[in-house]
Amino acid sequence: MPSVNGLADIVAAETELSMVDGQRGRLVYRGYEAPALAKTRRFSEVAHLLWTGRLPDPSELRELETQLTEARTLPPEIVAILDALPPEVDMMSALRTAVSAIRPRQIWPPTIEDATRIAGMMPTIVAYRHAKVTGQTPVPPRLDLSHVANYLYMLNGRAPSEAHTRALEAYLILTIDHGLNASTFAGRVAASTQSDLSAALTAALAAMKGPLHGGAPSLVMDMLDEIGSRENAAPFLRAKLERGERLMGFGHRVYKTRDPRAEALRDIVIELTQADPWFDLAAHTETIALRLLEEYKPGRELYTNVEYWAAAILRTVEIPKPIYTATFSISRVVGWSAHVLEQAANNRLIRPQSTYVGPLPA
Amino acid sequence: MPSVNGLADIVAAETELSMVDGQRGRLVYRGYEAPALAKTRRFSEVAHLLWTGRLPDPSELRELETQLTEARTLPPEIVAILDALPPEVDMMSALRTAVSAIRPRQIWPPTIEDATRIAGMMPTIVAYRHAKVTGQTPVPPRLDLSHVANYLYMLNGRAPSEAHTRALEAYLILTIDHGLNASTFAGRVAASTQSDLSAALTAALAAMKGPLHGGAPSLVMDMLDEIGSRENAAPFLRAKLERGERLMGFGHRVYKTRDPRAEALRDIVIELTQADPWFDLAAHTETIALRLLEEYKPGRELYTNVEYWAAAILRTVEIPKPIYTATFSISRVVGWSAHVLEQAANNRLIRPQSTYVGPLPA
Repeated sequence: MPSVNGLADIVAAETELSMVDGQRGRLVYRGYEAPALAKTRRFSEVAHLLWTGRLPDPSELRELETQLTEARTLPPEIVAILDALPPEVDMMSALRTAVSAIRPRQIWPPTIEDATRIAGMMPTIVAYRHAKVTGQTPVPPRLDLSHVANYLYMLNGRAPSEAHTRALEAYLILTIDHGLNASTFAGRVAASTQSDLSAALTAALAAMKGPLHGGAPSLVMDMLDEIGSRENAAPFLRAKLERGERLMGFGHRVYKTRDPRAEALRDIVIELTQADPWFDLAAHTETIALRLLEEYKPGRELYTNVEYWAAAILRTVEIPKPIYTATFSISRVVGWSAHVLEQAANNRLIRPQSTYVGPLPA
Repeated sequence: MPSVNGLADIVAAETELSMVDGQRGRLVYRGYEAPALAKTRRFSEVAHLLWTGRLPDPSELRELETQLTEARTLPPEIVAILDALPPEVDMMSALRTAVSAIRPRQIWPPTIEDATRIAGMMPTIVAYRHAKVTGQTPVPPRLDLSHVANYLYMLNGRAPSEAHTRALEAYLILTIDHGLNASTFAGRVAASTQSDLSAALTAALAAMKGPLHGGAPSLVMDMLDEIGSRENAAPFLRAKLERGERLMGFGHRVYKTRDPRAEALRDIVIELTQADPWFDLAAHTETIALRLLEEYKPGRELYTNVEYWAAAILRTVEIPKPIYTATFSISRVVGWSAHVLEQAANNRLIRPQSTYVGPLPA
């Protein structure tokens, strides 16, 4: 019985959902290259792919989008729960508590219908809560906008440009699933007891909140804010590396070559937001950073990761920092629920062993 | 990289908290035999042992009990959340949602102080919610009763007898921890991302809800209710075995000999509730069942498990069936939080691998 720390070398599940190839810098969702999907598909199409294994035909897509749209209007108890939480409760705790309160229509096995309802509700939960804690009047969802466009509409109070919607949609598609990360694994462990979908997604959200989960575009944003201008990029980054500090947005635990998500996001951002001065700063800083990393850490293969260009997109589409992780969750909930469905289809309790290393009775 | 199903042969953590020896029928908490603790100690003493590694001296016990008692009065937002949940929401979902809403005083690392607060609140959450959904007026906690006595008081509206308190206390002590079960593991996975204590306990409660988690004394109760009388025990059980059905309350995934918790609970129940006719039925049924199991499944070593005598105790102290799993959670939250503290003290992200078995891009 091998003893392991962090289970880093253990395969805990077989999955048909996503393939993360860190050596080749490749991310595949059910037979499709994720970057290609991000450039050509809508979020709802990729959700259909994750949940069913197939891209939808036009009538399936219409049906799915109708269900997602119907879920936008929150049940009164979810609104009451969000209102009951004091303003000091952070967004991820509020989102987790609200999702915990969603009643699945079926307890076991979990259904695509419930996954769709919960995925449909989450943008409204985040936007409603954000308005409440920032003293604004919540903007009710618009039912004529797409899943992603409506999220931006509720946050900013105006319909977003097509470019902004596409940029955010690409980010959400590229983060929709990523193998057995800690939150996905927590969700599968909960589901393996035959607990219901809301419970499993609550467990996933509980793990997602931790800073070690990864996904911290706000640190990239802080760094770019500190840099402030093109001219300051090189001296700032060099000083940081001289002090032995990490550059935010470079290097990834899994990807030992270019992060395919970062590349795709960069292409999309370039196409959509080329006139933005903040984007120009991000592109310039990336060039300098990659050069300096090669100089200070030769052979370490530290490439731009998804957080870096995620920060550029989130900033461009005006999503506020306190809801970055919740925005990531709005995407990942599709992957989580797809994993829960997969776990349920061939279920076995996930129940590892522990070794007792405490004292024995006298 | 070994591929595993359910991680049943994988050690995922070293722990000083509990040793489950299924071969010898032994359960140890931090150097003490659990049955001995159940017979001689209070719940709060064993909680102190789990959290700190030592049984408390009198002043430490006083301090801990004061903190548990202070937490009995729920913050208004927790009451508001319980009130917001429709009556159809089951008890475990309500408890999970309420715990998700508890704000830890410290985010990272988790503290014994927050573990104490949450453990102190949980009985009130369960009793309050139970009163609400059954149309009764919630009974406010009494601050002069012990942790366990006050729980029974809030549920039944009268102070319990010493015998009832001790019987329930023994059950709660014997279920306070049990190695890396699925709920404990879910809690450790969430905590390993440096998520906070409320989040980790929410993940544990999400897994606890599933029927495969184990812990179903209500099925034992249903069986004993169906048997109804001493004379019916033998024919009923024989008919069940003839049909190839399982007898509820016998056999355990881990214990291949007597479940030490069942033995201890039986001793305690005999001592405390000997005059109870329902208990007499349970004792008689156990004798018959063990004889018949030997006859029908020779060599299978199916002994009485903890659920069997848990059912006897829960019935005797008049805890209603819909809150059995929540009552178990009131105990296990101590083990969960002790595991979260242990995980945090030497943390590493728990993040296993998956193997992609889906299609590759054309």
